[in-house]
Amino acid sequence: MENEQLSNSTIFPLGDKVQANFTGDAYLKMVFTDPEPLNTAIGNVTFAPGARNNWHAHQVGQVLLVTGGKGWYQEEGKAARLLLTGDVINIPPNVKHWHGATKDSWFVHLAMTPGATEWFEAVDDEWFDQL
Amino acid sequence: MENEQLSNSTIFPLGDKVQANFTGDAYLKMVFTDPEPLNTAIGNVTFAPGARNNWHAHQVGQVLLVTGGKGWYQEEGKAARLLLTGDVINIPPNVKHWHGATKDSWFVHLAMTPGATEWFEAVDDEWFDQL
Repeated sequence: MENEQLSNSTIFPLGDKVQANFTGDAYLKMVFTDPEPLNTAIGNVTFAPGARNNWHAHQVGQVLLVTGGKGWYQEEGKAARLLLTGDVINIPPNVKHWHGATKDSWFVHLAMTPGATEWFEAVDDEWFDQL
Repeated sequence: MENEQLSNSTIFPLGDKVQANFTGDAYLKMVFTDPEPLNTAIGNVTFAPGARNNWHAHQVGQVLLVTGGKGWYQEEGKAARLLLTGDVINIPPNVKHWHGATKDSWFVHLAMTPGATEWFEAVDDEWFDQL
């Protein structure tokens, strides 16, 4: 899919293709990076169908605001949760998890991450394909 | 306009009609209120055409993420700035300002406010009408 086509369906800019720690095509645009007044930067993350990030954990936690499409959020040892437009997720600190698009939908969320992220292995293709 | 009609054009829930410090019909839904990991709650604010908040100031500041429609943002002593979908505004602490919809468009933004707000007088109708 062309970036221009996708950008028509997004609220915040698409940004640049993510180069590491993701499977499939995903894009990141930092929409807020000022040091004040928030304790976090804000990124707009857009996943092509089937794209998802690797398993990872946030040292302080992360908040996701879903602005479009359909996606998955899964914490290690738990079932994957379907995410839809308008969903808000509070990811606890140091919990291994991943998120990304469903197989047949784009998925867009704002991500607020007040701290560092530790990256792990990719989500298994066979596991993802049976979701 | 019916709430149901409006809700079809919004990403986050409409919430309840704001009862004070606004002119016209505006709605607020708090979408994130957990104490961690952010230093702020997040509210989704929806303004009917012509609706706006009173002049006010934030003790710590505020960040707005515009998710739909067309609106105005004005700091005291400066020109009003037109806001469109995708715009991000960092409102400095203790700066008197107002925001709201244009006369002919709904306007929706997320608001992140890590501190208290001081409210002042309403925006003058004659001033608003000539924008």
